[in-house]
Amino acid sequence: MRLYGKNPVIERIKADPKSIQKLFLQKQTELSEVVTAAKKEGLRFKSVKKNEFKNLCNNVHAQGVFAEVEEFKYTSFLSIEKKCKSGELIPVFLDGITDPQNLGSIIRTLACMGGFSIVLPEHGSADINETVLRVANGGENYIKISKVTNIATVIKSIKKKGVRIFGAAIDAKSRNVSEVLSGSPVALVVGSEGKGIRPGVRKDLDEIIALPMEGAKLSYNAAVAAAIFCYEIRKKR
Amino acid sequence: MRLYGKNPVIERIKADPKSIQKLFLQKQTELSEVVTAAKKEGLRFKSVKKNEFKNLCNNVHAQGVFAEVEEFKYTSFLSIEKKCKSGELIPVFLDGITDPQNLGSIIRTLACMGGFSIVLPEHGSADINETVLRVANGGENYIKISKVTNIATVIKSIKKKGVRIFGAAIDAKSRNVSEVLSGSPVALVVGSEGKGIRPGVRKDLDEIIALPMEGAKLSYNAAVAAAIFCYEIRKKR
Repeated sequence: MRLYGKNPVIERIKADPKSIQKLFLQKQTELSEVVTAAKKEGLRFKSVKKNEFKNLCNNVHAQGVFAEVEEFKYTSFLSIEKKCKSGELIPVFLDGITDPQNLGSIIRTLACMGGFSIVLPEHGSADINETVLRVANGGENYIKISKVTNIATVIKSIKKKGVRIFGAAIDAKSRNVSEVLSGSPVALVVGSEGKGIRPGVRKDLDEIIALPMEGAKLSYNAAVAAAIFCYEIRKKR
Repeated sequence: MRLYGKNPVIERIKADPKSIQKLFLQKQTELSEVVTAAKKEGLRFKSVKKNEFKNLCNNVHAQGVFAEVEEFKYTSFLSIEKKCKSGELIPVFLDGITDPQNLGSIIRTLACMGGFSIVLPEHGSADINETVLRVANGGENYIKISKVTNIATVIKSIKKKGVRIFGAAIDAKSRNVSEVLSGSPVALVVGSEGKGIRPGVRKDLDEIIALPMEGAKLSYNAAVAAAIFCYEIRKKR
């Protein structure tokens, strides 16, 4: 698969240079930071003329650089389960985020905040594709992302160990996220853009939390909502 | 100009039906909510076949509906200045947000939160174009958006009246946004995606505030950062 854009490529070079198979740069573009990083890791790159570059990258807005990289490696949830149960990591279950822009944005934001991991369901979610990685801006190198067969099963399992499960909703009847105290380890479930959290997952939530909505009766974008929920949860820990 | 997408069109029909000149719907698409709203306001619409619709809307992801609407009407800052000075409205100055996706996202988020207005500079900012309105999801109907010749002059003027001016930064040396108390009226300045707040504006800031960054040394997306800053400011009021 391909990684497009300056920051996504630079961060990948720094974090996991071995995953890079080929590196293409557009001539006469300011890419000194990419070149420096690549040389430091002993990575070779190919400089091509503007027209050829455009052809190669199918008109994706690539800022003059892309890399051919290995397929994305998900982290097995089993390998981080202990940290989620102890509260060292806060797992964020994305129950059906289908827009790659939203998934990429959430990865970027949570990588900046630190202390989170992301769990995706095997079906009904956007995959980690090229758009996701472009929007994630390199964030995928700094946060563990897992894919599980059944989110509900995983939630039940960590709930048994004392993790409190919060569901993010846009529901006026729910408590505001800032009122929710967090002593024990917590997890967050974010529903899909259109349909929210699925009933099979919803029934295991300890509490639904909401964002303040004192303006228009519109809905928050899913990635923006996830960012604010996670900001608030992170602050309390 | 055009307004694409179900929610943008529905919200516009509800909020300002007179601004709609023509309405195009794609046949065999679930648009009952649009049709109901249009009929209620006595708006006529044209249903066209899928292929024709696709041609008409230049492959924009329109969810089967778009409207020809009047040019966007900015609100004169003078007309809301008093409310900004009294603290009734919190003006958010976007000092050079150039990505339409980010501008649209900020409009959507702040319209949901309520209590904000948006001020854009005449030069060096994304305009309210079709992409912005699609992403804003109808939010432009519920928040005042002004365009001023010189942001610095406006900031100086409201500062004189006791409004405290905060600058949003990704600067580890700044105080975290959640530590900032807010008694008096406040305003927020958000810098551009690449360069932050311009020096001419920066020198009039009362304080720079930052978001917690305990994860990767990446940067937050401008629209996500603005959302979190505004969430925190709104909560304190």
